[in-house]
Amino acid sequence: MNAEIIAVGSELLLGQITNTNAKFISNQLSELGINVFYHSVVGDNADRLKKVIEIAESRADLIIFSGGLGPTKDDLTKETIAKHLGISLTMDSTAMQFIEDFFAKYNRPMTENNRKQALILAGSDVLANHHGMAPGMLLEKNNRTYILLPGPPKELEPMFQFEAKPKLATRLNQGGVILSHVLRFYGIGEAELEHKIQDILDQQSNPTVAPLASDGEVTLRITAKATTEQEARALIHAKEQEIQSVVGEFHYGNNDDSLASKIVEMLLHHKLTISAAESLTAGLFQSELAEISGVSGTLVGGVVTYTENAKIQQLGIEKSLLDQYGIVSSECAAAMALKVREKFGTDIGVGLTGAAGPEPHDGQPAGTIWIGFSIKGYEPITRKLQLSGMRNTNRIRAVKLACSYLMRLLVEKGYEKIN
Amino acid sequence: MNAEIIAVGSELLLGQITNTNAKFISNQLSELGINVFYHSVVGDNADRLKKVIEIAESRADLIIFSGGLGPTKDDLTKETIAKHLGISLTMDSTAMQFIEDFFAKYNRPMTENNRKQALILAGSDVLANHHGMAPGMLLEKNNRTYILLPGPPKELEPMFQFEAKPKLATRLNQGGVILSHVLRFYGIGEAELEHKIQDILDQQSNPTVAPLASDGEVTLRITAKATTEQEARALIHAKEQEIQSVVGEFHYGNNDDSLASKIVEMLLHHKLTISAAESLTAGLFQSELAEISGVSGTLVGGVVTYTENAKIQQLGIEKSLLDQYGIVSSECAAAMALKVREKFGTDIGVGLTGAAGPEPHDGQPAGTIWIGFSIKGYEPITRKLQLSGMRNTNRIRAVKLACSYLMRLLVEKGYEKIN
Repeated sequence: MNAEIIAVGSELLLGQITNTNAKFISNQLSELGINVFYHSVVGDNADRLKKVIEIAESRADLIIFSGGLGPTKDDLTKETIAKHLGISLTMDSTAMQFIEDFFAKYNRPMTENNRKQALILAGSDVLANHHGMAPGMLLEKNNRTYILLPGPPKELEPMFQFEAKPKLATRLNQGGVILSHVLRFYGIGEAELEHKIQDILDQQSNPTVAPLASDGEVTLRITAKATTEQEARALIHAKEQEIQSVVGEFHYGNNDDSLASKIVEMLLHHKLTISAAESLTAGLFQSELAEISGVSGTLVGGVVTYTENAKIQQLGIEKSLLDQYGIVSSECAAAMALKVREKFGTDIGVGLTGAAGPEPHDGQPAGTIWIGFSIKGYEPITRKLQLSGMRNTNRIRAVKLACSYLMRLLVEKGYEKIN
Repeated sequence: MNAEIIAVGSELLLGQITNTNAKFISNQLSELGINVFYHSVVGDNADRLKKVIEIAESRADLIIFSGGLGPTKDDLTKETIAKHLGISLTMDSTAMQFIEDFFAKYNRPMTENNRKQALILAGSDVLANHHGMAPGMLLEKNNRTYILLPGPPKELEPMFQFEAKPKLATRLNQGGVILSHVLRFYGIGEAELEHKIQDILDQQSNPTVAPLASDGEVTLRITAKATTEQEARALIHAKEQEIQSVVGEFHYGNNDDSLASKIVEMLLHHKLTISAAESLTAGLFQSELAEISGVSGTLVGGVVTYTENAKIQQLGIEKSLLDQYGIVSSECAAAMALKVREKFGTDIGVGLTGAAGPEPHDGQPAGTIWIGFSIKGYEPITRKLQLSGMRNTNRIRAVKLACSYLMRLLVEKGYEKIN
């Protein structure tokens, strides 16, 4: 089964929003072993949408649409598909009842245009929407499967996962499976990693091995094709062993793992608590850790000390230290890490200070960032970054690299990674 | 000039990364008045890429590629385009020198595969890469413009903005312009907003008016076509006046503004300082404000009190209050807001507490969130959210809604919005 994902919405083509739906659906389909060969995005225009559908029909047997199911005049996905396939739209009484209940529950008047959302493609299975009003649809026609999903990710994601995906799994072609497994590495660049496993990359056929670099990490995606899932898993496992024997020291996790999630796992496993004092990142490091469910077992909290005064009054850093070395300095980062660790009584303290940009800060050029680490029983250690991105790219990279450095530091102190 | 954006990379089709490049480029092109009618995504596969190029050539005269210019075997964008157009690849000595300097500067050995990055399409203009090694290219061929950009956003974004965009601007067809202007509204739902301006939506032709809902806000995009920029701006201005006369009270900003950016502007304008105490959001609210350059004039800092103990010891909230009402309560949110405001000596304090999910927290179901606001001279005020998303969607929505509520509260207290 080969799939194409078509996102409908002029706001995507105008660059107002990012097509996160295509990422989400692709990821879900890859778990089912369904190949996604193309994503397309088209605006709220019936003629162009029709042409995109025709192209998709020429190269995919599963076509998944996101967007254009809402109440407004711009929402024309199901209308265009109905016309193209020569089928009618019918009012679904369950969906209509749900919409009426929704307005009653929130005590808001239901405007007439909301009725349009209860119209479905005749002969389709309704996919219930538990987070909004427009129902989704799954239609089988001319040996193809069409799935229509609403645009807002908070509606689309649970609908796909809990309504569409189980239906797809049962329809799946049993002729073969494709499985992917991603290995994640830190503390090594893409070209260096590739150089180290050159032989493995040169020999690849099935499984294939594809490298990819992003902030603070490099990944290798192993993809195997086989007739059974078991066979595919065995192929992946053998290839992974081969790779680990060469670059295992840089490996930190797999698939959906992130540096933050593995740091949290590592801290929980070794029963270490953590706090942070943040200046340029203003809470983003702590927030990154808090994305992980269960983090309350290690993250006690921390402070955001954005101004110089806050660093002095809230953390007790001496003004003379800031006067002598500056706010963007190794000394300031080390003091922030130490002071927050003591204040919150944790095993580890992290301090982040720097010039996020676009302006220089305290005499240091934009992109100069110092990260301090204080581990109970050891002298504070600091690392300097010199980044060249925009303000927020720099803030995000600083957080990712803080996770990467912290992992390396803990390994050096004898704490084992949890792979 | 009609454009299509083609992103190349199997990692996009596997759902490992999001196509943020298409959003960025689309946004930049809309500023130039260039229509983007399609985005396409295709994997690291020469045959499928070739077919996607042929489709794009049938419907666009500006084709922009992202990705596939790197050193690895998977990177085949320029090779495929060269073969398709029947032109050769030549070594660019400036690019080669730059790559060699890059490795020398960082004191790392240059592996052989990096040379491939200095190959460019014969006859193309080189687009310099100041944030990575692979140069971009701009090629004119058969009355079409092809632009090749590297995949990593931190390389692509400045390259497009400072290298490709000025070149495109000079090539632009002078026959007409399309301009867009986005109005942003808070405190009103999409259907309600649309209902209020139904007459305007019914009459629309040029400019068009398109609504869109997202977290904590609704936008209206006004798009005008005219022969001159001045004429397009006049059409947009007249339509905006018409809309503002009906729903102006809900308007908070335009285009790239965010609730956070307008809150920061408002606080700076009224010389109000702010601090926050965060539990479930763990620093995300403060970090959202800190995305805005200049925020140090209003954001003093705050605390992350993730555990119950941190709330008691770091903020001085009484244990009896938490025992009586619970951590996920109006009382806790109000106390957090008040205590952090006093501790940091600011005019405004914000407290965020709740059950992010997936588990219930302190007896409250996942998605139950309380936000407290303490404004100097007033009793604390709290708002309850009952969200139904995943853990991080809930955390992000809580932050957006905190901004929206704070703006509404300040307006109620007589502080003017800065539109």
